[in-house]
Amino acid sequence: MKIIPLKETVSLKRAINQGTDKQRQTVAAILEDVKKKGDEALQKYTFMFDKVEITDTLVSPEEISEAYDAVSQDTLNIIREAINNIRDFHARQVQQSWMTTKEDGTILGQKVTSLDAVGVYVPGGRAAYPSSIIMNVVPAQVAGVKRIVMTSPPQKNNTLDNIVLVTAHELGVKEIHKVGGAQAIGALAYGTDSIQPVDKIVGPGNIYVALAKQLVFGVVAIDMIAGPSEIAVLADRTANSAYIAADLLSQAEHDPMATAILVTTDHSLAEKVAQEVSEQLATLPKKAIAEEAIQHYGAIYLAETMEQAVEAVNELAAEHLEIQTEDPWAILPSIRHAGAIFLGEHSSEPVGDYFAGPNHVLPTNGTARFSSPLTVEDFTKKSSIISYSKQAIQSQASKIATFARLEHLEAHARAVEKRLED
Amino acid sequence: MKIIPLKETVSLKRAINQGTDKQRQTVAAILEDVKKKGDEALQKYTFMFDKVEITDTLVSPEEISEAYDAVSQDTLNIIREAINNIRDFHARQVQQSWMTTKEDGTILGQKVTSLDAVGVYVPGGRAAYPSSIIMNVVPAQVAGVKRIVMTSPPQKNNTLDNIVLVTAHELGVKEIHKVGGAQAIGALAYGTDSIQPVDKIVGPGNIYVALAKQLVFGVVAIDMIAGPSEIAVLADRTANSAYIAADLLSQAEHDPMATAILVTTDHSLAEKVAQEVSEQLATLPKKAIAEEAIQHYGAIYLAETMEQAVEAVNELAAEHLEIQTEDPWAILPSIRHAGAIFLGEHSSEPVGDYFAGPNHVLPTNGTARFSSPLTVEDFTKKSSIISYSKQAIQSQASKIATFARLEHLEAHARAVEKRLED
Repeated sequence: MKIIPLKETVSLKRAINQGTDKQRQTVAAILEDVKKKGDEALQKYTFMFDKVEITDTLVSPEEISEAYDAVSQDTLNIIREAINNIRDFHARQVQQSWMTTKEDGTILGQKVTSLDAVGVYVPGGRAAYPSSIIMNVVPAQVAGVKRIVMTSPPQKNNTLDNIVLVTAHELGVKEIHKVGGAQAIGALAYGTDSIQPVDKIVGPGNIYVALAKQLVFGVVAIDMIAGPSEIAVLADRTANSAYIAADLLSQAEHDPMATAILVTTDHSLAEKVAQEVSEQLATLPKKAIAEEAIQHYGAIYLAETMEQAVEAVNELAAEHLEIQTEDPWAILPSIRHAGAIFLGEHSSEPVGDYFAGPNHVLPTNGTARFSSPLTVEDFTKKSSIISYSKQAIQSQASKIATFARLEHLEAHARAVEKRLED
Repeated sequence: MKIIPLKETVSLKRAINQGTDKQRQTVAAILEDVKKKGDEALQKYTFMFDKVEITDTLVSPEEISEAYDAVSQDTLNIIREAINNIRDFHARQVQQSWMTTKEDGTILGQKVTSLDAVGVYVPGGRAAYPSSIIMNVVPAQVAGVKRIVMTSPPQKNNTLDNIVLVTAHELGVKEIHKVGGAQAIGALAYGTDSIQPVDKIVGPGNIYVALAKQLVFGVVAIDMIAGPSEIAVLADRTANSAYIAADLLSQAEHDPMATAILVTTDHSLAEKVAQEVSEQLATLPKKAIAEEAIQHYGAIYLAETMEQAVEAVNELAAEHLEIQTEDPWAILPSIRHAGAIFLGEHSSEPVGDYFAGPNHVLPTNGTARFSSPLTVEDFTKKSSIISYSKQAIQSQASKIATFARLEHLEAHARAVEKRLED
């Protein structure tokens, strides 16, 4: 890894795949087709892209039970423990409806209501990501969403990955459809005979899925479009170079465009981490990916002071930030922008990917400046509550009418003044 | 107004102005120009669109003090009382950072941080909307946003409307720039020599402003794009037809595409409201606008049962919902989708536009199914907090590593296992 003296500002190269015009047109055409032809279009595109003929997209109880046969008890126990931890954390995010009352009879408040129906997209491909299912389903369930629909492209054997099915069943997801790509997003947004529409679509996917989500946004809500993974480590001379290198590589293995950055005040640590990264990299199964990420999007910044280092990690606004310093809690209040903050040398980033409890769906691409991890709140919405008594409206009507007339809205003024007439 | 028997589903025509391709290209070109040429581009477009030559966009203390001279003490008092009410309500929305600890030394939590900088767009045009300034600035201030920048197109006399300036000053907004349109959005997103960039842009605007906000989304956060105003009233035979008519018209006067709908179980009320709407309409200054809205987007639905009526208003998912029934609080729990809910005959909708306290920036176009009023939370973001002790990582590392390997992420597994080495 390159060691670079930290200048006033850190400039971070970030890559976002926004898709080509051609991809956008393809996706728009698929969505239009699903909107018009429903299930027929789903069958057509599933045959075209997944090379599978489906007549019924719904996963059957037999498929679930066969999946269980293929998963070991050990694996099942770990998945269950992860679900418990993640459910426990998210349960603490639940917001209550609230109100405030005034002596003149006014009641004001905020009613929290869960969304009616949510679609969770689960990508296909060679590896299954049970953690992604857990992280998207749990907050929706904790929020109280009544209908959760999962969709995922069928494998060649006309079913889904065993771990995917088992994880969904463990979570209690009842409606699982074997359909993927832009066509799945179209079905979730517009509905077909076999898939009722939802109010929000979450979950990662390839560029076609991402573009489809952007295009149906407004008809339904969507989660953020995730960019490549990012890790920033803030460290001083007390940090363990082998730990830091391992954590940097854990994100680098995700994507050749993943970002892995160390900001440190200690030159000797910088050199040791660079050395450790080379050594640990050599034996990784995903060496090629991680190496490319480290080469293009990896860097070690050497800061003169801890203040300067902290300002740099704030500018990075990374998805994951590790603070590996003598007293990480003393630094926490100065951190303004990061998706998830890991404190101390034992808090290795992958702890947050699967097991600790907080969500692993985090803002990327510097959007931690204004975005948050996926939370229970993302599956609820609020309504304001306004209840005026006769006394309240009578004492305020003339003031409200004056305000309305300032804005040239006479009908507004008259509506409140109407209440003064008797 | 037409009286229509309520069928199983309510179909609501809704109009959204998504702009033309030509408008989109114009806006994209302006944004690009502002990004490249900064203040020079701002001057150019201000001269082109607002017919005003500006060299310094910043509003001066003299302009503020002249604006105060033109505003009456009465008006000032009403604005101050509105600000107080709205600040009091929003102060109750403040969320705290929180944490949970486990006996093995684990600390998990969520850190709430305010955004660094927010831009509030204030439209120009014939009428000034001080309420809009208050509703966008107050939640940002309550959230703790340090820098709030207001931008608004200059009038012919090279300054802003008096009420706009006074309201901004009363709120404590220090940085007010005389620049509007897409060029203002470009300046807020990319920054110029005289306007530093922000993290989020809020506030209403014309189609050019709305398109510009969509195009800079991702570089900065934006609020939702508001559609035409909507009101739905749910009423039984106990309701006051004159009140209902006045409230329907208060929204109809906003826009020829505004929606005004009554859903009632009482035929006689339906007829009386239709009659009252005609009568009250006749003398409104904005008669032409309100009449067009009522004609095209207004309707009275006659339901057979209150359950059916409630389901209909849930399907409408209106921006504003009034419940004018014998016992509105008994109905509240059944309301799943509405931006703001007004309970009882004294709770006239305009009460919520200026004065009561809750925000008047509300989801339109059926997005109340998944969106919320503007809140303090919209000006904060969260970071997950994860702190593992040595004991915690050592007892969980092998489980986390197993999970990582399920997902074929070997570097993740090794990062946690590294912590077992000593």
